[in-house]
Amino acid sequence: MATRIIHLPKYSRLSCLVKPLTISARTFATATASTNPPQFTTLSVDDRTGIATLTLNRPPANALNALFMGEIQRSITDLEKENCRGLILTSSSQRIFSAGLDLKECYKADVASLEGLWCALQNLWRTLFSTPLITVALINGHAIAGGCMLAVSSEYRIMLPNFKIGVNETMVGLAVPSWLMDTYINIMPSRRIAEWDLTSSRIYSSESALKAGLVDELASSKEEALQKSAAFIDSFSKRTLMARAITKQQFRAEILRNFEQNRQHDLDIYLSTMQKPSMQEFLGEYLQSLDAKK
Amino acid sequence: MATRIIHLPKYSRLSCLVKPLTISARTFATATASTNPPQFTTLSVDDRTGIATLTLNRPPANALNALFMGEIQRSITDLEKENCRGLILTSSSQRIFSAGLDLKECYKADVASLEGLWCALQNLWRTLFSTPLITVALINGHAIAGGCMLAVSSEYRIMLPNFKIGVNETMVGLAVPSWLMDTYINIMPSRRIAEWDLTSSRIYSSESALKAGLVDELASSKEEALQKSAAFIDSFSKRTLMARAITKQQFRAEILRNFEQNRQHDLDIYLSTMQKPSMQEFLGEYLQSLDAKK
Amino acid sequence: MATRIIHLPKYSRLSCLVKPLTISARTFATATASTNPPQFTTLSVDDRTGIATLTLNRPPANALNALFMGEIQRSITDLEKENCRGLILTSSSQRIFSAGLDLKECYKADVASLEGLWCALQNLWRTLFSTPLITVALINGHAIAGGCMLAVSSEYRIMLPNFKIGVNETMVGLAVPSWLMDTYINIMPSRRIAEWDLTSSRIYSSESALKAGLVDELASSKEEALQKSAAFIDSFSKRTLMARAITKQQFRAEILRNFEQNRQHDLDIYLSTMQKPSMQEFLGEYLQSLDAKK
Repeated sequence: MATRIIHLPKYSRLSCLVKPLTISARTFATATASTNPPQFTTLSVDDRTGIATLTLNRPPANALNALFMGEIQRSITDLEKENCRGLILTSSSQRIFSAGLDLKECYKADVASLEGLWCALQNLWRTLFSTPLITVALINGHAIAGGCMLAVSSEYRIMLPNFKIGVNETMVGLAVPSWLMDTYINIMPSRRIAEWDLTSSRIYSSESALKAGLVDELASSKEEALQKSAAFIDSFSKRTLMARAITKQQFRAEILRNFEQNRQHDLDIYLSTMQKPSMQEFLGEYLQSLDAKK
Repeated sequence: MATRIIHLPKYSRLSCLVKPLTISARTFATATASTNPPQFTTLSVDDRTGIATLTLNRPPANALNALFMGEIQRSITDLEKENCRGLILTSSSQRIFSAGLDLKECYKADVASLEGLWCALQNLWRTLFSTPLITVALINGHAIAGGCMLAVSSEYRIMLPNFKIGVNETMVGLAVPSWLMDTYINIMPSRRIAEWDLTSSRIYSSESALKAGLVDELASSKEEALQKSAAFIDSFSKRTLMARAITKQQFRAEILRNFEQNRQHDLDIYLSTMQKPSMQEFLGEYLQSLDAKK
Repeated sequence: MATRIIHLPKYSRLSCLVKPLTISARTFATATASTNPPQFTTLSVDDRTGIATLTLNRPPANALNALFMGEIQRSITDLEKENCRGLILTSSSQRIFSAGLDLKECYKADVASLEGLWCALQNLWRTLFSTPLITVALINGHAIAGGCMLAVSSEYRIMLPNFKIGVNETMVGLAVPSWLMDTYINIMPSRRIAEWDLTSSRIYSSESALKAGLVDELASSKEEALQKSAAFIDSFSKRTLMARAITKQQFRAEILRNFEQNRQHDLDIYLSTMQKPSMQEFLGEYLQSLDAKK
């Protein structure tokens, strides 16, 4: 497996065809410059298959801070430019895919930091959800809140047994943002169950997630999961990749439009919630209880 | 079980946090003043659990007229202000949850009365569908048309066996209003089946409704159903109630927006249908046939 | 079975009631004059039941060219005016329901012809999808791409065993148009599966289509399928037909609105894709390979 990227002639014009259909995004600053070398991710590309594997590596819990999210986002954008075919998202940890937003960065933070964090989350979601790449989440550990967001924003989810997955924002006093809600509904077979899940912060086991349709397959090892990921990517014929990408974009266009229209309002809800004294007090206690568990 | 309401400190600011997100409604007059004492409903609140039970009590069929609907709506609004946690909607009848709109009030009625009736229905739906309260329909009898509307507008449905449930507006010559359609689709797992149900006035038995996903659980007695209702309400942690309420509202926001935009048009369709001589003739025959059955 | 149409008093005002709700369409020229006699279809109406059977008859594959599609569309419009109750769409072939768009007419065609073809497809879809008639697709052969479009635009699908069905536009380098996407999602129980199907050009067998919810019933013979089609149409009480038609229209209104807003853009995508030299080159090879199979 070579590191860095080949040009695959059959779909080399993927990005230039697809780009004009992309919804124009208002510019939101990302918290980090794009020139920093990767710090929390490893990217490898198989030259033979055109499949990239992006491994999340911010121990212990792959908690999503602005720097980490910016890195993931830029990796995806780079892979698009390099005309890679498919992307597998996985974790270097044996235990945690991602525990979600780094709440430490929400505690006693100034407005600029809070805004940077939430915009990084929005931007990461937007990039992953709309990428023309074929995306697979290889969930080899717990995928909670923002971790589950990464999974449901992908096109396919393969999970290892005995882990937990779910969107539990309400448990820390946060409303589920509407774009994450739409993304979750896009995956779950039933709106009725989706509403209950999101309002009650339901956490599924790997096995119940499979039954509920929240994940597509289980695999008994990371090896097997990688094979299944490649099989999903191979279900798309190479000569259909441009038409496939436009079809995917059109399928997801309304959710992206709603996000763009609602982006500032979504940020405002987060900021006003996070700046409440009661929320900060809760966060302080919560973070202390996490420390106590160690 | 005490009658009237406790203040539950954990979620006491529920309504003030949630209200600003509520869609601004154009003012539509309700047919009754808000100062009348309850006539067709009984409201009891368990101080210990914060769970209210609203019992429909307009014999023989809980037919929904403007007065009755206004009463239900105001009870919900009052409970929100009093910061109650959950609401169970049930019937005092052993046989009928609600048979739907009171068609007697549609027969030979003047325009103002027809308008009052339909606006009361719209307002009741809007209030029940968007309330921050945790809502359960305890369907201890037939739930037809407007009766089924009450059920699908709630977050959870527990039904006793051997009853009927469904939206059969087309059987009396009425188109299903678009907000009820959206509410029905929000519950049913399949749009394909939802369309067939609504266009063909399909009525389900309790058992087939469970299988179809139209209700969530069956219970063999009202007692058991009350226990299951409380269990659903308890699936929401008390400290998540504010975030839960905003999440519920955002989940249902698009349907509420569509309703507001379409509200006058929806009223116009109803009025023009009801004022057709053929419709009035049909209603006369229909009401006579109901009398004959007694 | 008599040929031509009776007036059924119970629903004779169907079209005049329903028409005002129809979304106003911008005028797009159809490729053929409406005075031509039918050439590729047979229409028979059972006077007793009010059920019309429209048989596609353009051997060998019922490939959809502008003339053929205009004919199907006008037949539907005529049946609406004549106040027919239900429509069964089937094929004269024992092997193919329809293989979709006639790609021969896309090869080395001038812009006017390409535009005429795509507008005829849009118009046919719009008419079939929005008709107040009760529509059944009796799929007695392969239903591929545009053939599958005819099936999913109908209200009910009965399929004979051992055939293939699916939307495989991406296999010939075309993005799935957004209105077809919405129509497919309207039928399939899961958006997650619908997206995979449309992006990967999945083709189902009759049996797997039934299991996936893409078709509603299988029938072992055309005779049995005709009986099942009539049973579906009879599931709608005759006196509900007006309310049924408005309910159907409202159920499908948002998809129709999105189509109208996006119509020109949808045409532009098709035209720009078809005029690419690489696309024309591919088409040439593809058509040659089809000829070779004969």
